[in-house]
Amino acid sequence: MDSRKVGVLGKSGGQLGRMLAAEASLLNIELLILDVGPSAPAKQILAHDNHIDGSFSDPTKIRELASKVDILTVEIEHVNVDILSSISSSPDFKHLQIHPSPDTIRIIQDKYVQKRHLEDAGCPVSKYLGVEATVEGVQGAINELGLPLMLKSRKLAYDGRGNYAIHTPSDIAPALTALQNRTLYAEKWVTFEKEIAVMVVRSASGEIRSYPTVETVHKDNICQLVFAPLRVDNPTVEERARIIAEEAVRTFTGAGVFGVEMFLLEDGTIYINEIAPRPHNSGHYTIEACHSSQYSNHLRAILSLPLGSTSLKVPSSAMLNIIGTSSSFSDIQALSTQALSVPGATVHLYGKSESRKGRKMGHITLVAHSDAELIANLRPLLLSSPTLSSLADKYTPPPPAQGGHSHSSPLISIIMGSDSDLPTLLPASTILHQFSIPHELTIVSAHRTPARLVTFAKNAASRGVKVIIAGAGGAAHLPGMVAAECALPVIGVPVKGSVLDGVDSLYSIVQMPRGIPVATVAINNSTNAALLAIRILSAGDPRLVKKMEEYLKGLESEVMGKVEKLENVGWHNYVVKK
Amino acid sequence: MDSRKVGVLGKSGGQLGRMLAAEASLLNIELLILDVGPSAPAKQILAHDNHIDGSFSDPTKIRELASKVDILTVEIEHVNVDILSSISSSPDFKHLQIHPSPDTIRIIQDKYVQKRHLEDAGCPVSKYLGVEATVEGVQGAINELGLPLMLKSRKLAYDGRGNYAIHTPSDIAPALTALQNRTLYAEKWVTFEKEIAVMVVRSASGEIRSYPTVETVHKDNICQLVFAPLRVDNPTVEERARIIAEEAVRTFTGAGVFGVEMFLLEDGTIYINEIAPRPHNSGHYTIEACHSSQYSNHLRAILSLPLGSTSLKVPSSAMLNIIGTSSSFSDIQALSTQALSVPGATVHLYGKSESRKGRKMGHITLVAHSDAELIANLRPLLLSSPTLSSLADKYTPPPPAQGGHSHSSPLISIIMGSDSDLPTLLPASTILHQFSIPHELTIVSAHRTPARLVTFAKNAASRGVKVIIAGAGGAAHLPGMVAAECALPVIGVPVKGSVLDGVDSLYSIVQMPRGIPVATVAINNSTNAALLAIRILSAGDPRLVKKMEEYLKGLESEVMGKVEKLENVGWHNYVVKK
Repeated sequence: MDSRKVGVLGKSGGQLGRMLAAEASLLNIELLILDVGPSAPAKQILAHDNHIDGSFSDPTKIRELASKVDILTVEIEHVNVDILSSISSSPDFKHLQIHPSPDTIRIIQDKYVQKRHLEDAGCPVSKYLGVEATVEGVQGAINELGLPLMLKSRKLAYDGRGNYAIHTPSDIAPALTALQNRTLYAEKWVTFEKEIAVMVVRSASGEIRSYPTVETVHKDNICQLVFAPLRVDNPTVEERARIIAEEAVRTFTGAGVFGVEMFLLEDGTIYINEIAPRPHNSGHYTIEACHSSQYSNHLRAILSLPLGSTSLKVPSSAMLNIIGTSSSFSDIQALSTQALSVPGATVHLYGKSESRKGRKMGHITLVAHSDAELIANLRPLLLSSPTLSSLADKYTPPPPAQGGHSHSSPLISIIMGSDSDLPTLLPASTILHQFSIPHELTIVSAHRTPARLVTFAKNAASRGVKVIIAGAGGAAHLPGMVAAECALPVIGVPVKGSVLDGVDSLYSIVQMPRGIPVATVAINNSTNAALLAIRILSAGDPRLVKKMEEYLKGLESEVMGKVEKLENVGWHNYVVKK
Repeated sequence: MDSRKVGVLGKSGGQLGRMLAAEASLLNIELLILDVGPSAPAKQILAHDNHIDGSFSDPTKIRELASKVDILTVEIEHVNVDILSSISSSPDFKHLQIHPSPDTIRIIQDKYVQKRHLEDAGCPVSKYLGVEATVEGVQGAINELGLPLMLKSRKLAYDGRGNYAIHTPSDIAPALTALQNRTLYAEKWVTFEKEIAVMVVRSASGEIRSYPTVETVHKDNICQLVFAPLRVDNPTVEERARIIAEEAVRTFTGAGVFGVEMFLLEDGTIYINEIAPRPHNSGHYTIEACHSSQYSNHLRAILSLPLGSTSLKVPSSAMLNIIGTSSSFSDIQALSTQALSVPGATVHLYGKSESRKGRKMGHITLVAHSDAELIANLRPLLLSSPTLSSLADKYTPPPPAQGGHSHSSPLISIIMGSDSDLPTLLPASTILHQFSIPHELTIVSAHRTPARLVTFAKNAASRGVKVIIAGAGGAAHLPGMVAAECALPVIGVPVKGSVLDGVDSLYSIVQMPRGIPVATVAINNSTNAALLAIRILSAGDPRLVKKMEEYLKGLESEVMGKVEKLENVGWHNYVVKK
């Protein structure tokens, strides 16, 4: 592809460099790794003699790497940025590019400076305060920000290292001991509904593209689980989060991908938590789930090659980390082997020669045709994970144990204007159950709960619902009003009332004005509504075409059985079942 | 993952070993490559000192590799099989496994023996004949099989090497010169509609899984283009091809993936052309397009690990080879760079140190949300490719230059019972055009062309159609009959006739019996049918949800404009547009 060489300041035994290396090989781009030892994870899959043995903080080694390459990049932000600055201004290295820029790395590696930079640029951050590392200093922060608060090291802080939660004043002394010799700052405690993140890629010329907003789940201060796309009740979050992340990345200089971690509060407020100027754990899923991965786009960006599409190519995906529990590899091997049996799972082991408690040893990506399938496949892995089993019930709840209860990740939503419509709508649920389609059923009345109707309709797509079945009788406004408030396909079931034989409902549902369609089925025929909903889902899941063909064959066989019976018993003796 | 080591008998400078190596690294499995030189493509991405420098035909080197590993596998079938057999029966190597088995490799590396083996096992192969390498021998084959025929070398034949097409008896002499010193056989000339292929994975215990049937396009005797999934008029081909391929692979012993190349004739007959006992060019697309790639499954199979899912994870994908044109790399670099700008394209360069005319230097995989998107993205790459531009118009036709003509890869099919319904259906096409949805429009009459109706409905899904819009008036049987013959969602547009105001059509379309739904829209409202079809497509392409939300906002603005106008001009002066 290119004869330019790329040097990476590697984190000791880091996996990000390894995944970047795999991408570089696809493009025949030579990557040189600065890391300790001859068999760092990235060096294992780049067989050449130009790597450098040393640390990302060693000035001599950094200069040696810089002298061998055309572009320098980093796998971790806690590098020796003074050397990078001096290299970047040195005439000896005038053809060398450093991405992201040393200025960006300098801002980001000091979390207090990073926060101030973001605040100055108008990006949303929660309250924070520089703090002197004394009891009085921390007490002052408590007075200002309230309790609890997070006391944090300004530098060399990642994966929870350098963080201390202060719940009562008695925590101050142990916190100062734990964080001694560090410069500190304090953050107001943020009670968030979810942690979310967006990977953003920025080219040297300032072009910006962002990956989908994802949910990240942290435990023991490490990002452990990622879900993409984000599923939330609030339909504006996905886009607002992307815009905030893009605006934040615009404020920095230099090229590459940036991981923007954010808090989503219950009222919909989004705060930036922190930014990583490099590929990030919350973007591993992009290797299997997006058109071009974060690693591909990092390389493209720093080499000024065209950026790749950041679109999801699958309906649903997740990532879980494989974390060491001890020096033994047995847990890691057990979880990896189990994952091989999970459809849509890909195991990534990092080739680290030693395991230890809390160390990231690998990850597993899952992709699936739906959230429900994803969750069903992910659940046994979480339950088996020695570090993540406590998350299983919250993030991968089992499907309802019995019929008649809503699935937590429904593809189809059945709603009715009144509980009196329930008997008419039940057959729809029976059919969906028969086809194993995750669904929910509830009451939404156009006339008696108009606000609920609007909220329901506006949130349905961002909750992952693909089709809405709405049953209503008489004036029967429900299907049409839902269709007016959302962009999903809405199937209307006219419910027969006590007068007019259901024709009133039928006309009311089918005769929609130009612009807002409702897919109307026969009066009282919710069976057909469910079958239509499944046919609709087949537009995104071709396996359902086969299933529906089998169902049609079943109908044919059933009738052929009756043909035979009619011949056998004679038509005078044939009893017609109701 | 596993401490077992895998040895690969590499083709000189082969790319299959490289892609296998990338998968092995994900699972921390050590792969040892036997290939010539220190920097064969696979060795470049496996940095260790245990590789072997030598040829796949060198007995000493093969034994050396065998002594270092637990499992031996091959990147090419033309290896020294006698040595493999002797190793497999030697007590010195009693813990070594060889996959696929030497017996399998022996059968497959002699194409005549392979054909006989398949024929004996009841697999469909076209007529063939062993031929003595003399003028009389070939003339005898012509008498038996007719002209034209393919004269082929039994051994060391791949990518067209060792093939000679005999069109007239005067071709015999040059053919014998070209194929001198080879043992030969002849194949009856097969006029095929398409070449198709299926990758099959077989575990050591005999478990079989197959990837989707794909179309392969050969040029200059090399597989150049692959499309997955297969799109054909005949809905039975996909499954029949998979069954034939699976049955063929069942007849062999040993584990691994097998590429089964087949001919599809115009009458639907399928013949096996040949089988490769290893990863295959027609399966490269699986890296980006399937849950687990052919390389992942080859490793899993030979290591007796659980097999991975072979399902497609994207709606549409293609692969094109990057073929060398000379010793220069400039064409290769130009095509690769162009591909970086194509959404959903992934470039795989093989790291070969030398290019030459006809050499496989890399490939590009494309994935897309639809066939139409895929073809639109692939077309400029084919047009730019120095070797494949002649294929562009056939395999990636441009969309219709003007409205009113059918797209070659429609997602939506608009049909009507009679040309008199055309004015009613035209607005549907206008809306689809506005949303850039590829569609077709034609006449299918339930009563006047009942056979066409059945064929149309039965083939729609295998042609890639996702939604059918059917307009009909009066008795209006078309939508319901189409829904009875296929599993796709069918939208019915009741067309208003000269009597009964369209109520007859509406009832006829909406009141379908339980089991067969038709999504009915308002009388004459094909605009809504198209909008509903787009909402349905959003189940597989979430980008359309956003587009539909914008459309709804547009409707709102339009009405708000009228609100303003009404206030401005006063309602006595307001002119209502028809």
